[in-house]
Amino acid sequence: MSKLLVVGTVAFDAIETPFGKTDKILGGAATYIGLSAAQFDVNSAIVSIVGDDFPVGYLDLLKSKNIDTSGIEIVKGGKTFFWKGKYHNDMNTRDTLITELNTLADFNPVVPESFKDTDYLMLGNLHPSVQMAVIKQIPVRPKLVVLDTMNFWMDNTWDELLEVISKVDVITINDEEARQLSGEYSLVNAAKKIHEMGPSYVVIKKGEHGALLVNGEKMFYAPALPLAEVFDPTGAGDTFAGGFIGYLAQTKNNSFNNMKNAVIYGSNLASFCVEKFGTRRMEDLTKNEIRKRLGRFKELTQFEIELH
Amino acid sequence: MSKLLVVGTVAFDAIETPFGKTDKILGGAATYIGLSAAQFDVNSAIVSIVGDDFPVGYLDLLKSKNIDTSGIEIVKGGKTFFWKGKYHNDMNTRDTLITELNTLADFNPVVPESFKDTDYLMLGNLHPSVQMAVIKQIPVRPKLVVLDTMNFWMDNTWDELLEVISKVDVITINDEEARQLSGEYSLVNAAKKIHEMGPSYVVIKKGEHGALLVNGEKMFYAPALPLAEVFDPTGAGDTFAGGFIGYLAQTKNNSFNNMKNAVIYGSNLASFCVEKFGTRRMEDLTKNEIRKRLGRFKELTQFEIELH
Repeated sequence: MSKLLVVGTVAFDAIETPFGKTDKILGGAATYIGLSAAQFDVNSAIVSIVGDDFPVGYLDLLKSKNIDTSGIEIVKGGKTFFWKGKYHNDMNTRDTLITELNTLADFNPVVPESFKDTDYLMLGNLHPSVQMAVIKQIPVRPKLVVLDTMNFWMDNTWDELLEVISKVDVITINDEEARQLSGEYSLVNAAKKIHEMGPSYVVIKKGEHGALLVNGEKMFYAPALPLAEVFDPTGAGDTFAGGFIGYLAQTKNNSFNNMKNAVIYGSNLASFCVEKFGTRRMEDLTKNEIRKRLGRFKELTQFEIELH
Repeated sequence: MSKLLVVGTVAFDAIETPFGKTDKILGGAATYIGLSAAQFDVNSAIVSIVGDDFPVGYLDLLKSKNIDTSGIEIVKGGKTFFWKGKYHNDMNTRDTLITELNTLADFNPVVPESFKDTDYLMLGNLHPSVQMAVIKQIPVRPKLVVLDTMNFWMDNTWDELLEVISKVDVITINDEEARQLSGEYSLVNAAKKIHEMGPSYVVIKKGEHGALLVNGEKMFYAPALPLAEVFDPTGAGDTFAGGFIGYLAQTKNNSFNNMKNAVIYGSNLASFCVEKFGTRRMEDLTKNEIRKRLGRFKELTQFEIELH
């Protein structure tokens, strides 16, 4: 079974959407990535940091999904990273109301000994220096390194970001970020520029419009499943990334054709994530539900055409 | 061979994009629809109106594509409908600089005798009363009636629009228009409401994000081909519609599965349209080029997944 190491935030979120609001609930990029990847047969671990205000029950939840949590540092007397946000009516835009870094401000990630030979490495959205620190602790290059990042790091830590980008195989960013990173409006040209920065594979996440995978001249497009109601988009991108790398880690096949499947699985899992607040839907999601929804993705995208 | 009747504008366009600008060139919804549908084995005709300032060469171009132009009324001393627009840098938004209705203001469409038994009817974007007048001239209901419209008619001719919508099988509109027409934000719910207005099939055009076909619980998504450069988006939606109905008319099969193919062909043809200014690319497009690009659409969308 492949080893999959995930680094990213484990956090408290407070979320407000047109459907309702939550108090502090479980959140964080590594949480969503881990829960999503846990739907596959992988041996996974999370490297992160929390305060001792973090409920044992949340750690137990991750453990119950066979996620190794020994790399989650618990800071005595520290407070867990907290994000509060409010989604607008269109659910595509949101305002950040509160960001308290807390223990995350001094995060020095330590990769557990048992995961220094990880096969797959997922660098969730974090300060690029922290992502780099994880790469440096792994002596033999993993079979695949996937990096997620966002515009905040482009605005504030450009040089560090470019350095870590140069070390990875796959980058996942949204369309506006791809444009910002590359200085190109066309996503085709943007991907070309980003290839030159390092990643052979560029995954451009377009939210409700789906995701585009680019590898040189090869392209693949996975739509998002059109849903009657998006209850809470929080974590959808991380869930996508977790499904993507989880599927690859299970199948141990990083060919472009298999990455197509990984993108479909990422979209599949993300379509569940948004159905309930926070991580709730991912907590009780079953493989059977995923399998059924895969059928809907096939109906949505597959056609049999006769050349005319 | 199926008969296909197209009603819509035949016009002058003047276009400005970041790549350049044109003087008055050939434009109009029916022009783009006709040129696109002409890529299929159909017996097609256009019903429209122009002034006698309209160049004979443009009519000859349509005739050379086997399009019957006898239904294009030429008004002596009249001026042809003229639209001038300027695209912003993102190519997704544009400003209308000039709209001169001219002869279009008094358009009373007359369906040629030889097309009163048309098999397929495409109602291009026009005043809904004009679209209705065409429906009323056709004694036996065609096998399929497709209607294109836009927000302008929702704002200004709501009742007439609802009446014509109630008479058609397929409506093609963009995502914002689907939301406006239905009062629903989710496109799934929007399509459901629009079904209740009449059309069994709703095609939601999302520009660079592709197109979604909905028929009750069934959905199909065709991406737009990601392009390095979109030279001029004018007519892409009409070209999509022309490819959609042209393919159906050729194959004489209006099943949902065949409509999937029709949506793919619509996207395929639209991806050519935007490569040059105005109708230029559509004028010399060959079936062989379309066939090759179909291969790219397959690579872009088709996958072979093993259930895990």
